[in-house]
Amino acid sequence: MKTSIIGYYTTRFGEIWEKSLSELIEEAITGALKNTGIDKKQIDAVFFSNMLAGVLGNNLHTPSKIAEIIGLNIPIFRLEAACASGGIAFHLASNYLQARSAKTVLVVGAEKMTDYSPEETTSALMAAASGEEQAAGLTFPGLYAIIANYYLQKYGYTEENLAYVGVKNHFHGSLNDKAHFRNIVTVNQVLKSACIAAPLKVLDSSPISDGAAAVILTSDKNMIKKMKYKADVLSTKTASDVISLSKREDLDTLLATKIAAEQAFKETQLARKNINVAELHDCFSIAEILAMEDLGFWKKGEGGTRIKEFSTQFGSGSSLIVNTSGGLKAAGHPVGATGIKQIGELFLQLTGQADKRQVKKARYGLAHNVGGSGGTAVVTILGI
Amino acid sequence: MKTSIIGYYTTRFGEIWEKSLSELIEEAITGALKNTGIDKKQIDAVFFSNMLAGVLGNNLHTPSKIAEIIGLNIPIFRLEAACASGGIAFHLASNYLQARSAKTVLVVGAEKMTDYSPEETTSALMAAASGEEQAAGLTFPGLYAIIANYYLQKYGYTEENLAYVGVKNHFHGSLNDKAHFRNIVTVNQVLKSACIAAPLKVLDSSPISDGAAAVILTSDKNMIKKMKYKADVLSTKTASDVISLSKREDLDTLLATKIAAEQAFKETQLARKNINVAELHDCFSIAEILAMEDLGFWKKGEGGTRIKEFSTQFGSGSSLIVNTSGGLKAAGHPVGATGIKQIGELFLQLTGQADKRQVKKARYGLAHNVGGSGGTAVVTILGI
Repeated sequence: MKTSIIGYYTTRFGEIWEKSLSELIEEAITGALKNTGIDKKQIDAVFFSNMLAGVLGNNLHTPSKIAEIIGLNIPIFRLEAACASGGIAFHLASNYLQARSAKTVLVVGAEKMTDYSPEETTSALMAAASGEEQAAGLTFPGLYAIIANYYLQKYGYTEENLAYVGVKNHFHGSLNDKAHFRNIVTVNQVLKSACIAAPLKVLDSSPISDGAAAVILTSDKNMIKKMKYKADVLSTKTASDVISLSKREDLDTLLATKIAAEQAFKETQLARKNINVAELHDCFSIAEILAMEDLGFWKKGEGGTRIKEFSTQFGSGSSLIVNTSGGLKAAGHPVGATGIKQIGELFLQLTGQADKRQVKKARYGLAHNVGGSGGTAVVTILGI
Repeated sequence: MKTSIIGYYTTRFGEIWEKSLSELIEEAITGALKNTGIDKKQIDAVFFSNMLAGVLGNNLHTPSKIAEIIGLNIPIFRLEAACASGGIAFHLASNYLQARSAKTVLVVGAEKMTDYSPEETTSALMAAASGEEQAAGLTFPGLYAIIANYYLQKYGYTEENLAYVGVKNHFHGSLNDKAHFRNIVTVNQVLKSACIAAPLKVLDSSPISDGAAAVILTSDKNMIKKMKYKADVLSTKTASDVISLSKREDLDTLLATKIAAEQAFKETQLARKNINVAELHDCFSIAEILAMEDLGFWKKGEGGTRIKEFSTQFGSGSSLIVNTSGGLKAAGHPVGATGIKQIGELFLQLTGQADKRQVKKARYGLAHNVGGSGGTAVVTILGI
């Protein structure tokens, strides 16, 4: 059964101290309904993604709080899969339509992270890691630094190779007025930025952000027909993996990404070269490089070289542009909202609404959302 | 498409200090697979329900931790809807089968609550309430006490009417060797037990428990055919409502329960009198009385009288027996596990495996799971 995304809204991502979690959710829901031009009564169910409101704000059971915001007694669900919460919410929303339990659903993700001390937020984020990793005092930069060191040594690269991810994504962020960071940075600036967990610097790392994003998804043929802007969901697949790095067979492959990608490409019967725009989970620079390889766009081990060609940067004229939103790195990473923003950015690109960063003739888009250090991955392919 | 429950396992509910959350989950998964007689490789996806591990134990992203336990890279989802988490996980699992994204799924719920001080756990549970209610210093007994006082005054009952719920459910708990409490209590004992939030006493209130429960659900016709024990999912419906009591139109009706029940009975075309066994959300005595009314088994306002007839007690010979497991009151209430245990208890009853508490000729069962003070409700109807 065909399902299409027919509307999208994202709040600005960044330090949004003037709005509560509920107010961010309300802005995203209201914005998505307005952009789509439908009434809230046409929404049959809501899927909500959030990671940290419980741990940081003792705020759970958000479905009932969203019922207060929208004033409807419809089914509302909350999904949590760490930083993959948004992709997972979209995946289950899509399945809800396929099960014919709803015709039109709203998928909204939100996170409030900057009201707390960095130590509190960093500690809360480690809830996504294994108990052993938490007990060892590891942090997420630390976990990805282990992966990065392994990758650099295995293939003979240096930290300079990683730096190109941040350079590209900050350039894209400069073209996105909803992005957390809009400044352009150079390779030299990345290399000279403060070290977080060697070899990862501040400018290799996605920030702690507030924000909310929402998409509207429908299987209603008449509704789809009336819409000016629409993009079809061709596939949404998810896989899981052991969370502890020490239990992985291979440190430079995110197995969950690989499995989900293979399933999604098989279902769509698309080739990798058909994808024109991709939003990848660049929580750290190394993550985008591994994702390009695990998704099958680049061969394993060649990412360190390929990233220096700037072939996935807007304006390069190549057939695949990556993280036009600015990615997690520059657009920001309010974890529950990230997976929804990725899909929303593809929607903007495929429907010609991406403004200054519009990729020409974008027909197929892929979103890749990861939880923790690879314990969950979601791959979504959209097309027009 | 027909889907059937083909297996169930629950750990003992109670103070299980010797097992971690992961160990409880592992026991439930292993037990359910063994009871069903299938291999873990036949499981296509896992739905997991838990409320508090994030807030109390900084433990999130459980899907990846379950991937470690079962050693499979399949889709795994975590659902949270406060005390309705289990019912919601089952609802979405059922939809996942209907969407044909999986043929056989495992739904597991777990909660670890007794490793913390009562104050910590009580505070964490209030995450399910509204911000205003939290700020006012209200507790869940306090919220349900407001509802209870309203109900008693409106219909001219006293706290004695409420006491019969605990008496009945403790009697049922005495017949269930997995129950948290197995002692029989009298009306007088309930009335003389310590007051928690007037008019609610300790023996009107469900306990804080540890525990895990799992069911296996399949749409695989060949698998269903081979099974000795099976019960069909006839309907699973959920609705939401505003969470703040102050925003409700009517304090003695849980609107979400009413809506979900009407939808479920409509879908199954069953009459209320067709239901032989029901597991209702008796977090407090008043909640079971309201549920009987809101689900349409009793008329609004007559519950205070009807509960004194003991007609829903095992052995009464009436056509509907309620909370044979002991309910939340006596079986215990490890919140993430509760909704799964309810459905599992119906499975035991409908397949003739309920041992000392087996209701004769039980053909249709209804489970009713509530989040918070009624912000979420799930109604599931099973049949053979």
